Amino acid sequence: MHNITVALDAMGGDFGPSVTVPAAVQALSLFPELKVIVVGDKPSIEQHILTLGYGDNPRLSVVHSDRIISNTEKPSFALRHSRDTSMRIALDLVESDQADACISCGNTGALMALSRFRLKLLPGIDRPALVAALPSASGQKTWMLDLGANASADAESLFQFAVMGSALAEQHLATKPRVAILNIGAEEIKGNDLVKRCAEMMSQTPSINYIGYIEGNEILHDVADVVVCDGFVGNTVLKASEGTAQLFLNKLKARLGASTFKGWIARILFSDLINEVKTLNPDQYNGASLLGLRGIVIKSHGSADVSALVHAIGEAVHEVKRQVPNKISDRLEAVLLERQY
Amino acid sequence: MHNITVALDAMGGDFGPSVTVPAAVQALSLFPELKVIVVGDKPSIEQHILTLGYGDNPRLSVVHSDRIISNTEKPSFALRHSRDTSMRIALDLVESDQADACISCGNTGALMALSRFRLKLLPGIDRPALVAALPSASGQKTWMLDLGANASADAESLFQFAVMGSALAEQHLATKPRVAILNIGAEEIKGNDLVKRCAEMMSQTPSINYIGYIEGNEILHDVADVVVCDGFVGNTVLKASEGTAQLFLNKLKARLGASTFKGWIARILFSDLINEVKTLNPDQYNGASLLGLRGIVIKSHGSADVSALVHAIGEAVHEVKRQVPNKISDRLEAVLLERQY
Repeated sequence: MHNITVALDAMGGDFGPSVTVPAAVQALSLFPELKVIVVGDKPSIEQHILTLGYGDNPRLSVVHSDRIISNTEKPSFALRHSRDTSMRIALDLVESDQADACISCGNTGALMALSRFRLKLLPGIDRPALVAALPSASGQKTWMLDLGANASADAESLFQFAVMGSALAEQHLATKPRVAILNIGAEEIKGNDLVKRCAEMMSQTPSINYIGYIEGNEILHDVADVVVCDGFVGNTVLKASEGTAQLFLNKLKARLGASTFKGWIARILFSDLINEVKTLNPDQYNGASLLGLRGIVIKSHGSADVSALVHAIGEAVHEVKRQVPNKISDRLEAVLLERQY
Repeated sequence: MHNITVALDAMGGDFGPSVTVPAAVQALSLFPELKVIVVGDKPSIEQHILTLGYGDNPRLSVVHSDRIISNTEKPSFALRHSRDTSMRIALDLVESDQADACISCGNTGALMALSRFRLKLLPGIDRPALVAALPSASGQKTWMLDLGANASADAESLFQFAVMGSALAEQHLATKPRVAILNIGAEEIKGNDLVKRCAEMMSQTPSINYIGYIEGNEILHDVADVVVCDGFVGNTVLKASEGTAQLFLNKLKARLGASTFKGWIARILFSDLINEVKTLNPDQYNGASLLGLRGIVIKSHGSADVSALVHAIGEAVHEVKRQVPNKISDRLEAVLLERQY
């Protein structure tokens, strides 16, 4: 069994070391091959390790950083002033091969800019993309990208997102992923130039299992394994789904939480319904991957709790094992060859 | 009390006269000032009127059409071959002032193209927009546009959508509508050029109560009264929300429908929950308005049942009473004057 080392930016997110350190410790117990380098304010991190009663362990090390990138910093500013920050040092550990992947709950824009600057793009990739696994009606996952790494895209980028998403989904599925383009109508004639041009490229690429357009209401209904769209659309669509799910959850919780006889019966009979329904929230899987880089970078929600962050670390472990960046490179090369003929 | 006459395309949608005729009759009993001209295959419509036991009534008249526009027809084809179709005749009744509004459950693309061709755009409007009222957490409505009348937009169009949406929402609200632009982040720096340029125009227009950017998860949470975005984003976001809501409803229905003791108790205690939760589905209000035209056109869902279509007819009645196209014109003129100074 090969060791897998991840660099964890301990300072990002809403809770800092009080969540990141327990998550690191929990991940170590879950993944026997894992080593974690926790990057951040050393005294604070060591205090949290002590509090957990977790003694010296060669699998858990701490690298000190003096500064953090705040959530309100612009990516361009963060890029120029990243030295000595926990996020930058965690990425540098990947760049220098001391770690196999980086995980951060910090400023998304800064993480994307810094990742691109430190790790560089894979050959043939013009822009990185943020991808996440969404739940679906049937219990299957659906990968959607781009979720906001870019505020706009051209057809070539959209096509590259499809190739990357397909290569990633392949590492999770037994079958060839069904790839669809998100559009405003399933008919050939509908949509803007961007999706039409991308559709043309997809249909000329036999190695991608392109199934055509899908509409927004089909995303969570297991119609496709990979859904491709530009970052503006992906981000707004995902957040709108999360907002809708939250509305329903709140309503259900209010019903089950009522201090009435009905509420009491409801809690006895249906306390599991909330959990069942929660699994339908697009927000449930924490850990979005930044694809297209020469290294593995996982973005966790800023508001992630311990178990959510452990899930994001697990995604990093999975991608290291499967060597996702290499798989993307290989797939891209094959596609480019196809397109030359 | 002034009479209000609406022309109802009886042939569009999934069910034709079996839904449109009962909806017309129901609307007549709800709105005493209403007259309905039902346009479509006369023998079939008259048969349905007879079946309902609804005798001769000067408030309900039938105009015969030989043909219908199918749901699969391209808008450009429909435009060239619209003569003698129910949709075209219903729109012509508005154009010739024989009706105050047109309602159709038919082909959306064809309805948009034909409406623009027959009724023309209001002065100062470059593109029409499809707007609908969405439910929100607090029970208030939120108007969102464009929902797909255009597959793309420029900043000037987006700005016009904001003016039109604000003028429409004003006719429903007691306060000045809060207008927001949908974006991928609330910070000033985020988003694409389109939303940034539109935001600049909005902030220079005092007569619009512009409150800034909102993100997708806030749409249904009563943060803004009017949400502006391009038609591609609006359509995918709305449908994704509907898809998420449907997923939850299905889960809940399965639980309440189970033929077990738990299911039996659940039905007794929570049969009203389904209805309560249904009110959160963005799909609940039928009747999207096509704004920016010199006439009132309401698009109903193709799958609308009788009560949903009655809701769409009610929206038409409301817009006629409030003279929405005039209100939009006035508001636009005021805004253009503001921008000259």
